[in-house]
Amino acid sequence: MSSSTVDPADPVFQLHRGGKMAIVSTVPLTSRDDLSLAYTPGVARVCEAIAADPTLAHDYTWASRAVAVVTDGSAVLGLGNIGPRAALPVMEGKAVLFKQFGGIDAVPVCLDTQDVDEIVATVKALAPSFGGINLEDISAPRCFEVERRLDEALDIPVFHDDQHGTAIVVLAALRNAATLLNRKLGDLRVAVSGAGAAGVAVTRMLVAGGVDPQRVVVCDSRGIISRQRTGLTGTKAELAELTNADGRQGDITEALRDADVLIGVSGGQIPEQAVAGMAPGGIVFALANPTPEVPPEIAARHVAVVATGRSDYPNQINNVLAFPGVFRGAMQARASRITDAMKVAAADAIASVVAEALTPEAIVPSPLDPRVAPAVAEAVAEAARRDGVARA
Amino acid sequence: MSSSTVDPADPVFQLHRGGKMAIVSTVPLTSRDDLSLAYTPGVARVCEAIAADPTLAHDYTWASRAVAVVTDGSAVLGLGNIGPRAALPVMEGKAVLFKQFGGIDAVPVCLDTQDVDEIVATVKALAPSFGGINLEDISAPRCFEVERRLDEALDIPVFHDDQHGTAIVVLAALRNAATLLNRKLGDLRVAVSGAGAAGVAVTRMLVAGGVDPQRVVVCDSRGIISRQRTGLTGTKAELAELTNADGRQGDITEALRDADVLIGVSGGQIPEQAVAGMAPGGIVFALANPTPEVPPEIAARHVAVVATGRSDYPNQINNVLAFPGVFRGAMQARASRITDAMKVAAADAIASVVAEALTPEAIVPSPLDPRVAPAVAEAVAEAARRDGVARA
Repeated sequence: MSSSTVDPADPVFQLHRGGKMAIVSTVPLTSRDDLSLAYTPGVARVCEAIAADPTLAHDYTWASRAVAVVTDGSAVLGLGNIGPRAALPVMEGKAVLFKQFGGIDAVPVCLDTQDVDEIVATVKALAPSFGGINLEDISAPRCFEVERRLDEALDIPVFHDDQHGTAIVVLAALRNAATLLNRKLGDLRVAVSGAGAAGVAVTRMLVAGGVDPQRVVVCDSRGIISRQRTGLTGTKAELAELTNADGRQGDITEALRDADVLIGVSGGQIPEQAVAGMAPGGIVFALANPTPEVPPEIAARHVAVVATGRSDYPNQINNVLAFPGVFRGAMQARASRITDAMKVAAADAIASVVAEALTPEAIVPSPLDPRVAPAVAEAVAEAARRDGVARA
Repeated sequence: MSSSTVDPADPVFQLHRGGKMAIVSTVPLTSRDDLSLAYTPGVARVCEAIAADPTLAHDYTWASRAVAVVTDGSAVLGLGNIGPRAALPVMEGKAVLFKQFGGIDAVPVCLDTQDVDEIVATVKALAPSFGGINLEDISAPRCFEVERRLDEALDIPVFHDDQHGTAIVVLAALRNAATLLNRKLGDLRVAVSGAGAAGVAVTRMLVAGGVDPQRVVVCDSRGIISRQRTGLTGTKAELAELTNADGRQGDITEALRDADVLIGVSGGQIPEQAVAGMAPGGIVFALANPTPEVPPEIAARHVAVVATGRSDYPNQINNVLAFPGVFRGAMQARASRITDAMKVAAADAIASVVAEALTPEAIVPSPLDPRVAPAVAEAVAEAARRDGVARA
């Protein structure tokens, strides 16, 4: 049976029948009086109050908890450009995770366009009924421009989870791994394999969190990104300026020579030989799903700590550790945006949850750990206030 | 205390705190296995199946039940152009009525633009994650163009409730009133006061339902619409062609002379003197809210049947009798659009629910009558199949 066929006996298809989410009313609607309070004529008084003072929408509508989960279906999981309709099950899954872990009411918005201008215009237009915008599965490099322009245009949090959710959890995990190994972040030599949305965001987040950019090397499918490479534009040109002070050139084997850390966010396979060239006592995060860049059993022969994106191995780097608490904290603080300091605070909070009981197989909390989202939310809200972007 | 101030003791504000709706997961999310079915890696199999056959989105996502309730905030209730944020409580109210009466999962989408091209582009872009589009509180004449262009562009139902919801319930009520009074729809002389969204749609719906357009006269704020009026464009020019075969001119008093039916959808006041000029045994629907065009007690001095838009008088013409069942039926039939025949079928179904027990004070069902939405849904789905627009 082909992977694109419906198997009615498959528990995945059984679970998905009818979708995974629903709207519920939080008010009674069974009498004429109920209707006249929740709808006309009573509702008009709430409308008039908000018209006079728009900030009241936060108190008297669901917008304070409502997030649009926006995709154009161009880079869905590892499946690629499968379009908006086929992306919807992922966005529904994201929405129910938002609710389960963050108490956020998230709505899938799958767009019938992959044009940057149209995506930006659409999200700007629909923003008033939401308190936050979670961008999802939009391919690089368009995702960078979409996020930047929306972040500038809107006064509510805009967050591309494939970039920053991953980056936050990677920073949390690296922080705990470094603590466990008695290393300082600023001393680590880091090789990032992959320069798409996640690779770029991970690199920036690690630098924001204390990694020395001069000790970072980033590889794309053509090898190490360096100032010597010709034809680099946009984000990759910025990475060439920011990282790789030694001017290393070559492939992933060269990037990993004497490196302390490998962060794989590419999906490409990395040979054992290359991992064997890392410095002793290193760290490998092989995050491609379902097939890690290096099989974790093989990585473990050469390094001290291994993490993956999979739920069936220890140390799962799972975005669900970040996005529910990040939005909850940002929205509780009525933050106008999500700053780097808020992301670093989220990473610190995730790391702290397991800091008292670090082992090589427990550098991050379980995705189901109920302590994580509240801790992240509190840290993010505090950071928003410190950064002057909070309005509550 | 001004009407635009928050009164914390007002039960309307108490009810609205935090909004009126929420998202819930319909699947379990408490174990790692749950997560791997509802989200990665399991969800990828559903995505691949939909990518191979997009019609599967109907079975395996919530889109089959999900409706976007779209407004630009330009004509909210009787409050006028209060903008998207102040419109949100009405859209939430609409959403919870959709759920309560139709089992539809409706999402408020309040747009930060009142430009027709931008509204159309935005709704087209977000359509893939919804199974229907309910337009709401968009001012005339823009609402006509927005609906027409979206109806042409999309293959899911598009329905401007202020037009067609009102028109369907008016037709249902007029049908039962005519039956009660032993009159035929085609013989009635009808005056419609108001040529905005509701007035235009009511006129068209009555004609689709059997009223003779030559016996209809429509008034706007400048008086009777006739071929003699200069400067009429668009919808009003069409009304001038369609209606008023006698070429009547003048004000509402002239429009009502010897009329059998007055339908007020204008908000303007109509003097008792004008109503007194109607033919004996007539019908008045004075639908402005909260102040009917004619006080119902005064109308009752001159006609046999009176209806209003208010819940505290008999015969409430309430759109909630129509829209939940219309969308449920259209979406169950996977209709590509909502045809006139589907709207007439909805009106017939509403009328039928109380046809066995007609009295001058019970020509329409109560808005809370649980028999209405299922009857409407079934009739609408059947009509969709007859009209060849159904895909299920």
